Amino acid sequence: MSSQPAKLVVQKFGGSSLGEAARIRRVAQRIARARATGADLVVVVSAMGDTTDELLQLAAAITDDPDARELDMLLATGEHQSATLVSMALHALGVRAISLTGAQAGITTDASHGRARIANVEPRRVRRELDNGNVVIVAGFQGQRQGSADEDGGPGETTTLGRGGSDTTAVALAAALRAGRCQIFTDVRGIYTADPRLVPAARQLPVIGYEEMLELAQQGAQVMQVRAVELGWINDVEIEVLSSFEDAPGTLIREDPLVEQRNKVRGLAHDRNVAKVTLLAVPDRPGIARNVFGPLADAGVIVDMIVQNVGHDGATDISFTVPRVDLAKAEKVLQPVVGEMGARGITTDATVAKVSIVGAGLHNAPGYAARMFGTLADAGVNIEMISTSEVRITCVIGESGLSKALESLHAAFELERPDPVDAAALAAG
Amino acid sequence: MSSQPAKLVVQKFGGSSLGEAARIRRVAQRIARARATGADLVVVVSAMGDTTDELLQLAAAITDDPDARELDMLLATGEHQSATLVSMALHALGVRAISLTGAQAGITTDASHGRARIANVEPRRVRRELDNGNVVIVAGFQGQRQGSADEDGGPGETTTLGRGGSDTTAVALAAALRAGRCQIFTDVRGIYTADPRLVPAARQLPVIGYEEMLELAQQGAQVMQVRAVELGWINDVEIEVLSSFEDAPGTLIREDPLVEQRNKVRGLAHDRNVAKVTLLAVPDRPGIARNVFGPLADAGVIVDMIVQNVGHDGATDISFTVPRVDLAKAEKVLQPVVGEMGARGITTDATVAKVSIVGAGLHNAPGYAARMFGTLADAGVNIEMISTSEVRITCVIGESGLSKALESLHAAFELERPDPVDAAALAAG
Repeated sequence: MSSQPAKLVVQKFGGSSLGEAARIRRVAQRIARARATGADLVVVVSAMGDTTDELLQLAAAITDDPDARELDMLLATGEHQSATLVSMALHALGVRAISLTGAQAGITTDASHGRARIANVEPRRVRRELDNGNVVIVAGFQGQRQGSADEDGGPGETTTLGRGGSDTTAVALAAALRAGRCQIFTDVRGIYTADPRLVPAARQLPVIGYEEMLELAQQGAQVMQVRAVELGWINDVEIEVLSSFEDAPGTLIREDPLVEQRNKVRGLAHDRNVAKVTLLAVPDRPGIARNVFGPLADAGVIVDMIVQNVGHDGATDISFTVPRVDLAKAEKVLQPVVGEMGARGITTDATVAKVSIVGAGLHNAPGYAARMFGTLADAGVNIEMISTSEVRITCVIGESGLSKALESLHAAFELERPDPVDAAALAAG
Repeated sequence: MSSQPAKLVVQKFGGSSLGEAARIRRVAQRIARARATGADLVVVVSAMGDTTDELLQLAAAITDDPDARELDMLLATGEHQSATLVSMALHALGVRAISLTGAQAGITTDASHGRARIANVEPRRVRRELDNGNVVIVAGFQGQRQGSADEDGGPGETTTLGRGGSDTTAVALAAALRAGRCQIFTDVRGIYTADPRLVPAARQLPVIGYEEMLELAQQGAQVMQVRAVELGWINDVEIEVLSSFEDAPGTLIREDPLVEQRNKVRGLAHDRNVAKVTLLAVPDRPGIARNVFGPLADAGVIVDMIVQNVGHDGATDISFTVPRVDLAKAEKVLQPVVGEMGARGITTDATVAKVSIVGAGLHNAPGYAARMFGTLADAGVNIEMISTSEVRITCVIGESGLSKALESLHAAFELERPDPVDAAALAAG
């Protein structure tokens, strides 16, 4: 009995791969094939199809303001259900399997119900079940609040990790179990240079570094949860994103030793869940930023890009972006603030979008910013706001220009051409 | 902080009372009204509407033979969901509440997945939440397998208590918490002298003894789970069965000190989930019963009534009843046995039903049996099998004669007339 198996793989299947009984049986066949190669397997599952949304609707039919602790208990049942069904489907194929809740799998979190962060992973039960010859199916997206278990064996409080949290469950388990690889099965084939639904020339990347992937995810690429990428980076877990519907190689997310040789834009990200807020003629004095952004933070509104123009006549305009879904809340919070500050008013625009170029080489090459702005200008797309990071340049533009912006940037940075270094990178892996 | 509240009531709401959001809000209003009287409340809930059946169908779409342990994990989610929703609905009414799983409520069971028996109830968490001012909503029908919890706080294995198990959860919690009363809210007004859908003259009973209720439940009255009545009897928990839709007095199930004064049939039960099996010309030698009933028990088929006729020519006919849903299984098990024993063959009849008269006075008064048989004969209903207990006489008849049998028995035993002792019994309570 070895508690450190020779070859352990963590797999994660998303809700669209588990949308109905037939799909669950298909996923089980895929797991069974991997098992037949002799690998020990831990499989993290999301809730079936639209289950999470349906449970949210049920809660909304009961109350406008569901208690976060109760909502977590409710939502976690979706992953309990899919985990048991995948386990049953494996049994039907003659594969030994057992399903575990996040708490049973040893995942403990902080107390932030609805968006808890994993505090610790103590996968003793998982190891025991692996040693017993089981494929271990773990309900994703959830854990148990640290310290909440009863000393007499009563289970503690269920928490959930936020949208896409099953990715984080999978990567955290892979790290704790020191698994060789974490495979994220999803409804796309991997990470692309841009969203292929908007840019027909988009190309699948064979490899991408953690930092670049993190920027892509943060800037709107919805393939993986941001925190899962961070966790993979910190723990050096090699993540593979691949299709659950076809047998095709995916994209590897890992430390990219060849990053200096690329010096190139790796991909484009975009995000439509953006709205712009502008406070007009705000008196230019200390404490203004706190007065504006303190109440928004208290209301749970995440502010992204902030631009403050140079003031004149003792007043300045402040623009920033918020998630579009939070725009109404942000306006409600800010209306009284505007009056108190003596600003002229507030304008909003819910028809903007963000477009970003991402690449680990960008910070050494100022020419990329100029090329991005020039390309957008040539395409007739007006830039409303700009922000940059080490590996990214982001512009806020009108949403109507998004497709044109993505296509022209994809062409300008020659993203359709395979990177010659990639072949070397794969060989080095 | 008192850990033994002055007035504690356990309430249980069934699935039909929780079938949709509007009904859940109505149940919450009812709980809030009870709370407003100052009572401490523990509320046990079943899964919403047809949730349990839907989950069973989902499992059936995956595999013909779902693992019992996985099925328990799956089914338990139904009650988790309804518990959180009732809790949210109470919050919306400004009532403090918290939902707990069966395991969190301290309910541990034996290891019989799918039909586990409660081994222990240690409701420390429930008491703590009551002391915190909460109405405690407990997911019914479930517990945690005794001894399965990890020593490091990982939750143990979820078990379920079988159909109607939420009644048992409620009565067990009432016993452990020494609650004054356990109220079972259901879709009927209480316990009737017969099923009012079949016998229009059926009358609601104000009071019924545990033993009589047990016989009624065992013989097919589906208002309460048999084990819940047993548990109430053993622990002397006063149970009230009442409607969740109207404000009307229900039926009290409790020790009946006036039972000797009644000497009367209290009610009729019937059961259509019955099939008759007859083994023809079985050689009459020792060990036959074991050969027949051993394999049935191994296959999990519960045999109810058994009749063995006097043998002739060294052979005898053996008839018995099984649940109709198990008939195919019983036949499959018995075919080879019939050959081995040298019996002539096997016949089955899936169109029979059981009808019973129940009353604590019956064992002292042989005249009741004669009156029952005579009434059925007068009604043209043929009796196929008979069995009796201390407080019950049961006949197997053709299903087509069931309504006529019930109506004529109801009239013959004057069940439509209120029992004069009941008023005294209620006054004494």
